[in-house]
Amino acid sequence: MISIIPVEGLPEIAEGDDLAAMIAAAVTLEDGDVVCVAHKVVSKAEGRVAQLDGVVPSERAHELAGHDGDPRRLELVLREAARILRARPPLVIAETRHGFVCASAGVDASNAPEADMVVLLPEDPDASAALLRAGLEERTGKSLGVVVTDTFGRAWRFGIVNVAIGAAGIDVLRDLRGEHDPVGYELHSTVIAVADEIAAAAELVMGKTERVPVAVVRGLDVAGESTARELIMPPDLDLFR
Amino acid sequence: MISIIPVEGLPEIAEGDDLAAMIAAAVTLEDGDVVCVAHKVVSKAEGRVAQLDGVVPSERAHELAGHDGDPRRLELVLREAARILRARPPLVIAETRHGFVCASAGVDASNAPEADMVVLLPEDPDASAALLRAGLEERTGKSLGVVVTDTFGRAWRFGIVNVAIGAAGIDVLRDLRGEHDPVGYELHSTVIAVADEIAAAAELVMGKTERVPVAVVRGLDVAGESTARELIMPPDLDLFR
Repeated sequence: MISIIPVEGLPEIAEGDDLAAMIAAAVTLEDGDVVCVAHKVVSKAEGRVAQLDGVVPSERAHELAGHDGDPRRLELVLREAARILRARPPLVIAETRHGFVCASAGVDASNAPEADMVVLLPEDPDASAALLRAGLEERTGKSLGVVVTDTFGRAWRFGIVNVAIGAAGIDVLRDLRGEHDPVGYELHSTVIAVADEIAAAAELVMGKTERVPVAVVRGLDVAGESTARELIMPPDLDLFR
Repeated sequence: MISIIPVEGLPEIAEGDDLAAMIAAAVTLEDGDVVCVAHKVVSKAEGRVAQLDGVVPSERAHELAGHDGDPRRLELVLREAARILRARPPLVIAETRHGFVCASAGVDASNAPEADMVVLLPEDPDASAALLRAGLEERTGKSLGVVVTDTFGRAWRFGIVNVAIGAAGIDVLRDLRGEHDPVGYELHSTVIAVADEIAAAAELVMGKTERVPVAVVRGLDVAGESTARELIMPPDLDLFR
């Protein structure tokens, strides 16, 4: 059996906060637990927020904003994006510098601490996960996994789901058939993106209120040393670039 | 807290089997439980399997099979597909008649009972879920949800995840912000595809062995009357058709 445990009672997170200390104080962790953390609190602790005030939008940002969008927000989207895949102003689907494909290159106005602010994705979510894991393991003496999550839309399917954008201490992929040496698309179609499923499971308790940005998934057997970077489709296998 | 409970000890499923009776005998259900069932057992119970033997491949099936594929399997893919989105023989990404976009239009050789057989998607997975729900509720006297699942690849992300292709007794979408009357893409970006997250969570216990095609997700609050059809992106909102 697997349990998904909401971590309640965390305070509002601000830049410089010690997330590991806060989480360790809020929940009793066990060996093998995977601690799932919504990126918004990681980003806030890391100071990855931006003020719209003072941002000077480029011509392209004005175009992408259309009639309904804030061109300053779109300017930040352009700065976070490596590539724009689709645009229907003010909606932009972009590839981030990390390689993630998501709306607004992860620039999120809805979870910002103030009205004129946006939350950005962490600079390096795998590094964020590794740091958080180290801090939690040091405080608890347990062997842990950490997944940093965000909610992404999907091509062809309605609604958004929580996925892994950073990971530490787990195998993010699990071979479905237990066979060896599959290559390319054969591998793609026979491995489960288990870190994304863990993130999705965590959202089932995280999403109910704004104040549960952390959940523990207990009872998995996923200890390992991979990163969420492995969840990005390699360009040579990507049929939808 | 949410629990994900594997349902163990189910026999191999064959056409005409009473899945509801088998599941009700294998696990004690509670009000509000969501019973997640891998489509392969639903398809087998419904006789939605096909013999490759005797299938006469069209010219197009030969093309799509390339050097490595079985043109008879590709012929069945073509019959299940409403539209081919991408082809890199023998890999085909297709839209099924239901509107799902997935590899091989859901034609699956890996889970077939015999070497020369393939498993197809149920004709109407929402109807399958509704029937299974009725059978389970009748036998247990509990209020239940049912999700029929399959593992799909995703654009841009490596590996496959379990998603909902049929649903009964639950709300498949959950409004993230609690706001009313969002429209179009605004709605898309503010609702969680909770049925897909439930399916993903269930896979965490289903995938470990071939013999756990059913899992119960307990502790959710998702009772409702929607169907998995709502998880298909409407064409007018789909930026990636």
